[in-house]
Amino acid sequence: MTIDLSKYQVRTDLALEAQEMAALGSQIPGVWNESTNDGGILVTRMHIQTDEGARRIGKMPGHYVTIEVPELRKGDTELQDRVATSFAREFEAFLTRVGVQPNGSVLIAGLGNWNVTPDALGPLVVENVMVTRHYFELMPGDVSPGYRPVSAIAPGVMGTTGIESSDIISGIVEKSKPDLIIAVDALAAKSLDRVNTTIQIADTGIHPGSGIGNKRRGLTREILGVPVIAIGVPTVVYASTIVSNTMDMVFEHMKRQTSNTQPLFGVFGTMQEQERLQLVREVLQPLGHDLLVTPKEIDMFMEDIANIIASGLNAALHEAVDTHNVAAYTH
Amino acid sequence: MTIDLSKYQVRTDLALEAQEMAALGSQIPGVWNESTNDGGILVTRMHIQTDEGARRIGKMPGHYVTIEVPELRKGDTELQDRVATSFAREFEAFLTRVGVQPNGSVLIAGLGNWNVTPDALGPLVVENVMVTRHYFELMPGDVSPGYRPVSAIAPGVMGTTGIESSDIISGIVEKSKPDLIIAVDALAAKSLDRVNTTIQIADTGIHPGSGIGNKRRGLTREILGVPVIAIGVPTVVYASTIVSNTMDMVFEHMKRQTSNTQPLFGVFGTMQEQERLQLVREVLQPLGHDLLVTPKEIDMFMEDIANIIASGLNAALHEAVDTHNVAAYTH
Amino acid sequence: MTIDLSKYQVRTDLALEAQEMAALGSQIPGVWNESTNDGGILVTRMHIQTDEGARRIGKMPGHYVTIEVPELRKGDTELQDRVATSFAREFEAFLTRVGVQPNGSVLIAGLGNWNVTPDALGPLVVENVMVTRHYFELMPGDVSPGYRPVSAIAPGVMGTTGIESSDIISGIVEKSKPDLIIAVDALAAKSLDRVNTTIQIADTGIHPGSGIGNKRRGLTREILGVPVIAIGVPTVVYASTIVSNTMDMVFEHMKRQTSNTQPLFGVFGTMQEQERLQLVREVLQPLGHDLLVTPKEIDMFMEDIANIIASGLNAALHEAVDTHNVAAYTH
Amino acid sequence: MTIDLSKYQVRTDLALEAQEMAALGSQIPGVWNESTNDGGILVTRMHIQTDEGARRIGKMPGHYVTIEVPELRKGDTELQDRVATSFAREFEAFLTRVGVQPNGSVLIAGLGNWNVTPDALGPLVVENVMVTRHYFELMPGDVSPGYRPVSAIAPGVMGTTGIESSDIISGIVEKSKPDLIIAVDALAAKSLDRVNTTIQIADTGIHPGSGIGNKRRGLTREILGVPVIAIGVPTVVYASTIVSNTMDMVFEHMKRQTSNTQPLFGVFGTMQEQERLQLVREVLQPLGHDLLVTPKEIDMFMEDIANIIASGLNAALHEAVDTHNVAAYTH
Repeated sequence: MTIDLSKYQVRTDLALEAQEMAALGSQIPGVWNESTNDGGILVTRMHIQTDEGARRIGKMPGHYVTIEVPELRKGDTELQDRVATSFAREFEAFLTRVGVQPNGSVLIAGLGNWNVTPDALGPLVVENVMVTRHYFELMPGDVSPGYRPVSAIAPGVMGTTGIESSDIISGIVEKSKPDLIIAVDALAAKSLDRVNTTIQIADTGIHPGSGIGNKRRGLTREILGVPVIAIGVPTVVYASTIVSNTMDMVFEHMKRQTSNTQPLFGVFGTMQEQERLQLVREVLQPLGHDLLVTPKEIDMFMEDIANIIASGLNAALHEAVDTHNVAAYTH
Repeated sequence: MTIDLSKYQVRTDLALEAQEMAALGSQIPGVWNESTNDGGILVTRMHIQTDEGARRIGKMPGHYVTIEVPELRKGDTELQDRVATSFAREFEAFLTRVGVQPNGSVLIAGLGNWNVTPDALGPLVVENVMVTRHYFELMPGDVSPGYRPVSAIAPGVMGTTGIESSDIISGIVEKSKPDLIIAVDALAAKSLDRVNTTIQIADTGIHPGSGIGNKRRGLTREILGVPVIAIGVPTVVYASTIVSNTMDMVFEHMKRQTSNTQPLFGVFGTMQEQERLQLVREVLQPLGHDLLVTPKEIDMFMEDIANIIASGLNAALHEAVDTHNVAAYTH
Repeated sequence: MTIDLSKYQVRTDLALEAQEMAALGSQIPGVWNESTNDGGILVTRMHIQTDEGARRIGKMPGHYVTIEVPELRKGDTELQDRVATSFAREFEAFLTRVGVQPNGSVLIAGLGNWNVTPDALGPLVVENVMVTRHYFELMPGDVSPGYRPVSAIAPGVMGTTGIESSDIISGIVEKSKPDLIIAVDALAAKSLDRVNTTIQIADTGIHPGSGIGNKRRGLTREILGVPVIAIGVPTVVYASTIVSNTMDMVFEHMKRQTSNTQPLFGVFGTMQEQERLQLVREVLQPLGHDLLVTPKEIDMFMEDIANIIASGLNAALHEAVDTHNVAAYTH
Repeated sequence: MTIDLSKYQVRTDLALEAQEMAALGSQIPGVWNESTNDGGILVTRMHIQTDEGARRIGKMPGHYVTIEVPELRKGDTELQDRVATSFAREFEAFLTRVGVQPNGSVLIAGLGNWNVTPDALGPLVVENVMVTRHYFELMPGDVSPGYRPVSAIAPGVMGTTGIESSDIISGIVEKSKPDLIIAVDALAAKSLDRVNTTIQIADTGIHPGSGIGNKRRGLTREILGVPVIAIGVPTVVYASTIVSNTMDMVFEHMKRQTSNTQPLFGVFGTMQEQERLQLVREVLQPLGHDLLVTPKEIDMFMEDIANIIASGLNAALHEAVDTHNVAAYTH
């Protein structure tokens, strides 16, 4: 049997996971990497520099920063503050990279559906972020130094508005003329333990098909005319991905206890990861349940991670907001 | 003492109340009126035909329909269905009047702040209305006859987005090109017993300063290039209005029991309504509490009235949706 | 390696699934079964008559009715009404079975945590059900015939109240003296496609360890002194269960395409289901992610299923409420 | 005309306002008073020592502390923290007064209806307070020193549960045996500017007819067998109270500008406050709108004040929780 492998890739919106799958331990040409670990906060900076690297990994060329905090779901507020500070620091580097001035205006677009908890990351961040643009419009002389104009909108999803969210954002951009767009969206991950423990920042914008809801059009500099920084958090995993991942882990686990693979798994053990994933999907599809699944406590996790991102954005966007008191600016 | 009366009018967004105050029982030239009462549902159709009429009443020239249902707050679902049907019938007349074809596309703009319950009418209607435009975009051949393209957006308020809601709507109109805009907004009434028992429809659009939040720019045909039908429900009353109204009622009540006014109220009784209202405001202002107030059960009322309007809109906008099964299309 | 199989059973709160696993196609002595399918609504009535049957299946002796509606997640309101009617009919049989008179008073206990969406079934049903007991207390002469006293309480979970929910219910039972308790709770299923498509009714009460939150004490006739009918809906599945289930399906699928099992899966293929499940758990545990997972649209499903149960209970509990207009009594 | 004055008192649940109305500037025998003002936080400690004092004021004998913070509705988080600290200090004095030991167990009862925003104070405090009792039950050896067992329950209202909230609390008290009950409830005030700016603490428990919902039975030491400390915040005002109050202020205002009262207001001006209130109610009643009204931003105010109380309770109840980091313990 022949398999169209491209259709049967494990689906992930995290560049880090895509690279892990593509590299299998080796280095991919045209891709630069760096990692630091600061007290349980693992920051990986990746630069996909060439089209070849992009093709291999399956993500657009550009800069990606991934902040992984395995303990983040435990609800420790002190750790949350440290993550917000880390996030703010990394985000500031992106502001410099895309060339936005300290007084440049910013539109935060919170993508996703606020009625579907794991898809509500964008709307939740929008609800918690400091909005200042109207002060600059209504009483420009009265705004304290150290702030920039920030506006924020949650455009909803096509199923509830009838309009592509990219069209809504594009219309608002033409009227309000921001210098930068920050697009926040919930993502699908490969690994269940990255759900709500990981934040990705990228200067590539949002591309069609990424995120939880199926975007048909993207949010990119090409489309909108201004730079777009994307912020994402994985909040769901495909059921088929969980199964396929765990099978791999089971195989690894059993292999470690013996030397001969063949009799352990037979033909099944010799299949490529993609072939096995196809098999899993074939089996799940007719039952209609290759569902996107999410941990049952997702309601509580969402609130926390949205606050971390909102706090971090407030600190990164306004010089007058300090990364040390960053948590005070949201509720 | 001289009083700038224009500043001290009782504030109401209902044309019906404005007319009552201006007319004091007599007929205002250039204003046409008609009322029908169908089992507890009082429908008043008003046409402000001349600028003189508009000036006297303090509302824009145009058609206004007011549906008053004193029993509406009792939560009777059978009555709610009848009101939805009445509303649908009146609304259809507006569709004909502004010249929108049965297949003309419609954008419903739900104004107001969803975090402030009495200001959340617009967002609640948007959440409950049938949205169909994306079916026409994605699979135009597959849409059953009897439907038109409807999109819906809740643009938020300037305090939470940083952008004028009229700019957001205007940007979306340019991208999605609707033939008609329906703007839904919460209103301030003069009379506490009209709160959540009254629906107003008008073909004048939304004008600056109307509604609960202070709009600085309007939503009108002039600004947006397409007709705008406004739907409003009073959900709040100014504290000063309640006081002033009740004082008037007290005076009326006492007068009915005697023939000589002078000794009953002295100088106070001979003041004009506006003078007394000014006095009340002077007294309330320094304490900072000329608040907009709302009944304590507002949470429950809002859900019901938003459902009535959403059901009525579904029936009025789509030929395939019957006014008799109108309630089934929302949740 | 030896495995304590009892520890590694696939976890399910559905008696139907437990029986499927225990029976493997054959009949279990002491267990009676009957199924009917009425236009997409599959009703299975099971009676575990003996201790031997109970031990084999791993569920308490008693009557279990399972209503399965694979299409239920599609949001079809007409189907929802039919399911409510089916549920009401089956529930009425339980009322007769436990010997509660038509005017016997009922306490509905909605177990679970309203802050965790998939655990909020009980609180959501409590919010939607008709409560009438206070009318009987305050104006006993004025209640129309055909109603019985119904009270309803959501006692919360130990993590948020600090008190066992069974202690709270028990205290309320002593004060309010109901003749019957109906306990509603969210369940864990084996099969992802039973999540929010299945309702279980049982006359066994609620036993420790069942449901999503870990109850330490049960709600049973022995503890509370009155009969307890339990209503449950599976809303979550263990990640390990999904993996293990899918592996089985993959094996079945591959076997169907060949005759020789051995070379296909090797040692792995010859393992017992429990051994494989243990392996899966061993692999998932250190990563801390044998999570309870739930479909991402769980928010929407919960509202619908809670309404179906509330409507069905209203019709079953009050003679004056007809199973044909059953949906009208909730909002 | 003769008036039953007792029926026409301005309704207030604040002992401070009741005293102001009764005293009219003079001292009431048997009532002790003390006030301090600390940077915008006005604390008044009142002790109604005799039955005569209680009769005059219309409140039960006991200790009342009122914390008034006119600026509290402005959303200043630094001020909120200071108020939480003040509240904690005053509350600790009550703990000492009722004789509860530092390790004595506490049940917090959050009265009111969570579906009616201004009545949701109790449920909101319950949701935000630290609950610890289950740790003492499940792993008594592992609890750090400096904590006491705290449980918390929101019993709902009779209209939604069918059971008196005092019966529910009483049943739970018998099962969980707390040493102290803290009852939190929303109140009605006389003055609109005390809404959500004032906290009252009293060692008298909750009496029938107090609070927003009409309690038919109280929560007192006599009924429950353990001391009951009540915490209340005014969140609503009767429409008739607003009108009546403002009329008084208008009269005061006009009197200050002239020396002769008679011609200013006539008979109306010579009426007693109660007579005028009766008149106002007579006028409002037939229209069915002597409503409880609340500021339109009540949603936002409720969250803030509930957090202040929850933070203050955490600090007052647990020695290990410091009044300086008090805000960190809630979300």
